[in-house]
Amino acid sequence: MAVNLSPPEHLLPIAGIKLSSIAAGIYKDRKDIVLMEIAEGSQTVGVFTKNAFCAAPVTLCKSHLMEASPRYLLINAGNANAGTGSKGMQAAQETCQFVADAMGCDANQVLPFSTGVIGQQLPVELFQPAIAKVKTGLVEDNWVDAANSIMTTDTVAKGVSKQLEINGERVTITGITKGSGMIKPDMATMLAYVATDAAIKKSLLQKMLTEATETSFNSITVDSDTSTNDSLVLIATGQSAVTIDEANCANFQKVLNDVCQLLAQAIIRDAEGVTKFVTIDVIDALTVAEAKEVAYTVAHSPLVKTALFASDPNWGRILAAVGRSNVDALDVSKISLWLGDTMLLESGEPAASYTEEQGQQEMNKDEINIRIYLDRGEALARIWTSDLSYDYVKINAEYRS
Amino acid sequence: MAVNLSPPEHLLPIAGIKLSSIAAGIYKDRKDIVLMEIAEGSQTVGVFTKNAFCAAPVTLCKSHLMEASPRYLLINAGNANAGTGSKGMQAAQETCQFVADAMGCDANQVLPFSTGVIGQQLPVELFQPAIAKVKTGLVEDNWVDAANSIMTTDTVAKGVSKQLEINGERVTITGITKGSGMIKPDMATMLAYVATDAAIKKSLLQKMLTEATETSFNSITVDSDTSTNDSLVLIATGQSAVTIDEANCANFQKVLNDVCQLLAQAIIRDAEGVTKFVTIDVIDALTVAEAKEVAYTVAHSPLVKTALFASDPNWGRILAAVGRSNVDALDVSKISLWLGDTMLLESGEPAASYTEEQGQQEMNKDEINIRIYLDRGEALARIWTSDLSYDYVKINAEYRS
Repeated sequence: MAVNLSPPEHLLPIAGIKLSSIAAGIYKDRKDIVLMEIAEGSQTVGVFTKNAFCAAPVTLCKSHLMEASPRYLLINAGNANAGTGSKGMQAAQETCQFVADAMGCDANQVLPFSTGVIGQQLPVELFQPAIAKVKTGLVEDNWVDAANSIMTTDTVAKGVSKQLEINGERVTITGITKGSGMIKPDMATMLAYVATDAAIKKSLLQKMLTEATETSFNSITVDSDTSTNDSLVLIATGQSAVTIDEANCANFQKVLNDVCQLLAQAIIRDAEGVTKFVTIDVIDALTVAEAKEVAYTVAHSPLVKTALFASDPNWGRILAAVGRSNVDALDVSKISLWLGDTMLLESGEPAASYTEEQGQQEMNKDEINIRIYLDRGEALARIWTSDLSYDYVKINAEYRS
Repeated sequence: MAVNLSPPEHLLPIAGIKLSSIAAGIYKDRKDIVLMEIAEGSQTVGVFTKNAFCAAPVTLCKSHLMEASPRYLLINAGNANAGTGSKGMQAAQETCQFVADAMGCDANQVLPFSTGVIGQQLPVELFQPAIAKVKTGLVEDNWVDAANSIMTTDTVAKGVSKQLEINGERVTITGITKGSGMIKPDMATMLAYVATDAAIKKSLLQKMLTEATETSFNSITVDSDTSTNDSLVLIATGQSAVTIDEANCANFQKVLNDVCQLLAQAIIRDAEGVTKFVTIDVIDALTVAEAKEVAYTVAHSPLVKTALFASDPNWGRILAAVGRSNVDALDVSKISLWLGDTMLLESGEPAASYTEEQGQQEMNKDEINIRIYLDRGEALARIWTSDLSYDYVKINAEYRS
């Protein structure tokens, strides 16, 4: 059961973006292919997984983005087309050609995305008839359907819309994402698509996306397993009255960060087997990298995660994880530790004021905040993670059965 | 249920080492304190956790080892005396003083060891009466009882004895260990005690212990959580007819490595919730550090661990873990992957000969070998790990309840 997460009832359409989804038969009984049409004149940028075994569609996406201006995104769920070797690359190329033939563009103007089981060949034969069918349904007001159609082990569709005004003109940002396991994005997460009707040149768009990624998709983890298929795409159609440049981008960046953060948090709220939504703050570190190292070491600790699942204020496990994190000359006599409003450790000593009842009260909540003060500098990092439950094991033990 | 592990029926005594165990009441219903007496003239060395939050007894052990020649080891289970601040340090010092008073030695000739729950103060009041009682039971042939009395979440007592001949004279090595969760030793594991009746000078003893640790306790992981209390002690009493020096140490080192490896493997065979004993070999790496990085990334992946639990040959998860390991410029087109006798991936391509039935057969075994060939160099590493089961979550969610 997702933690405080409902599916979006409606998402604002973006002028210049049309979407359509159908059931192509990759899954037995639900929609699994999305076609997204991007109007000519739009700018599209992306960030992708750093996993060395990145999937064939990721490799192809990156080269198509360098070669041409994208007109279509083709997304399938149910098969990741990763670990599939040269045959998998050929399959990804074929699906792009199908779209190019059906829609009248070049194959390198199609960006392919796949998510699902790793190590199985893509059922290419399903794509040609599916594309003939899906292209007939392209409409602008169709984001919720797309969010539903890219899910794998997700239990809730994920999407956010925000609007802001720039010089009295309205700009809209809408994004959707999917993912709930194999989540420790290293550049972007499983699949996320964000679009705006503002006009933004490509170099600025890429810069803004990279900044937004750092405090959103690159700040979450479910299980430390960086996916082979992580992809995040940002599209600016330029069909509103607003042009964003270096001079007026601050407010747009803020809202973009917000959209990306809400989408990334939605993934954690719907993490596999999740019962707790956990925010970890590491404060007064020497560098942001150091703060993130400590935060991720705590977030990845199976012992911390099972204590969170059990609502057990067994804070010794947090402390042990901080102690083993890869930080030079960590002085434990300076470290303070808080659980919500309750201080556990003060300058390395058990807090005199602490009672087990206080700890229990904090742990009983479904949203938990762990704060670690290192007293080494002025950098900080915030990340989000989930707990480790029976259901995480169940979902991943039974994934292919 | 431990994987192919039985408790030792008998362990060979070591001349110069006496042991005694009693129930002091730290646990409700079982033995929890061990006193080990080391004859004068023995050499004792140790390796300890690198966790910055190391427990009070670990800190005290290290300084006592520098100050004096140890005569007694005092080991308690049920409470780790970690994260207990200055009060915890005072408690550790008091327990050493109790032994010193009872046995007539200096307090710094006593090495204290604690294992159990982190973050709770040591019940010092139980120690003085316990020591008065435990000292009356000191005998040489008592290692199995000690192995039983240091267990926490262990389900099977762990010990090994080996003998070898040097110049026609017999030398004995006996070791015991405990541990099954919070296991990713970084220098040594939870608690392990190895003794020999050979005479070995301290500097050589330390060197041999460090070498043996690298391919044993420093090559296992259950859950990536390095303990605050890891301690491994090696004692040479010199009461056999054999003196070991740099010239004749090769064979002894081999048997010592073997003893440490069997003890370390016993921890994995009895890992929390274990159903599979997994050996991971990373071969043809540039450096041993690189090989270990890849091996541990695979071993720590919750997705790989749940696939192992499910006996699911979902090798895409192994590949995804290899791909996200921290290795510069990893060329996936060179990587080959084997599961036991079955090739899964050949130079980055799915192996043509592979069938799902072969993979299933390998995965159904309770001892599984994953081999990863990087084709980058000539270094290799072998580590051992366990799977991630419902019972791991259960044991760690219910640990304090």
